[in-house]
Amino acid sequence: MPKVVDAAARRTELAEAVWRVIVRDGLEGASVRRVAQEAGLSVGSLRHYFTSQSDLLSFALELAGDRIDARISALAPERDQRLRVQAMVTEMLPLDTERRAECEVWLAFTARALVDPSLAELRANIDMRLRQAFRIMIDRLAAAGLLRPSLDRATEAERLYALVDGLIVHALLSPTPAGEHWVNDIVAAHLDDLAPATDRPPAGR
Amino acid sequence: MPKVVDAAARRTELAEAVWRVIVRDGLEGASVRRVAQEAGLSVGSLRHYFTSQSDLLSFALELAGDRIDARISALAPERDQRLRVQAMVTEMLPLDTERRAECEVWLAFTARALVDPSLAELRANIDMRLRQAFRIMIDRLAAAGLLRPSLDRATEAERLYALVDGLIVHALLSPTPAGEHWVNDIVAAHLDDLAPATDRPPAGR
Repeated sequence: MPKVVDAAARRTELAEAVWRVIVRDGLEGASVRRVAQEAGLSVGSLRHYFTSQSDLLSFALELAGDRIDARISALAPERDQRLRVQAMVTEMLPLDTERRAECEVWLAFTARALVDPSLAELRANIDMRLRQAFRIMIDRLAAAGLLRPSLDRATEAERLYALVDGLIVHALLSPTPAGEHWVNDIVAAHLDDLAPATDRPPAGR
Repeated sequence: MPKVVDAAARRTELAEAVWRVIVRDGLEGASVRRVAQEAGLSVGSLRHYFTSQSDLLSFALELAGDRIDARISALAPERDQRLRVQAMVTEMLPLDTERRAECEVWLAFTARALVDPSLAELRANIDMRLRQAFRIMIDRLAAAGLLRPSLDRATEAERLYALVDGLIVHALLSPTPAGEHWVNDIVAAHLDDLAPATDRPPAGR
């Protein structure tokens, strides 16, 4: 199926061009024209994918979600569910250039969704997908005995989801002297704290 | 000092005009010209306060910070430090029209700071101020015996800060059927969970 492969490859190439432009020029500089230029294509040939800037951003965000899903699916099996959940979260954090671009697209999209009603549906879909993902993580921890029984699962899914989104914002904007991996340490501390006291790793981890 | 009072009143009026424009038209619609129109002033008379859109946003964000500080200072004294910290956090959450506008300005500013280096200094100042505020909250809890001794204060300040910013984003974008006050419930659950088991309120609170 070379044609399918070509379409998928073209889609990925385009998404990468969108990201390069957004990271370099900001959302307000990411015009369809500039993306076409960056991708070495005509504006006309992009029409199949997007025609407006909001379309373009939606396209980039959907691709970012697909990439994160693909990386999570490709994670090596991990017997320790706490490490597994941590690895899933790590794929969402802006800890390298690629993930940083994804998070920047997410933040730009999120801010724009406040004022552009055409983005509401995609925003709601992404939100639902993420809520489910965090609920699955909490259920995994619970099934492995790594969630204190006194904790409410729905609340914990919301708490982890909010913690991760807050850390993404902070990591994007205020890298601390402790290095970029400090966000991972906060996630680890949170997951350790969810576990029953008897199942917590020794202090100083 | 009527002149000082006038200047302060003018500043507040302008900030309110900025907020109305941002909430109604989005960041990209919040031009100096439109704010002048909204405030019933000439563009020239605004030059003392801001000349560019980034200036305007910085101005609005600083005012938002001042307003939050003023509300926190005005909180009734509260003997229960957990309720006091919760009340402080509540002043930052988008739970009514005024706080929602503040949070929208914060999110728009944050997204823009990614791509506008002129905003980096203000962003860093705001971030430092917030870090200190969350550190003070955690220290208050610790002094009142409401922080488990096994928890690291610096980590807990970062964790609460990230949780609150994540909740702000979620509350702005995805009000759940449970009503807008669900974010307060997550904060309450978090603060309860920080406390030693013997000092936690009964379940079902």
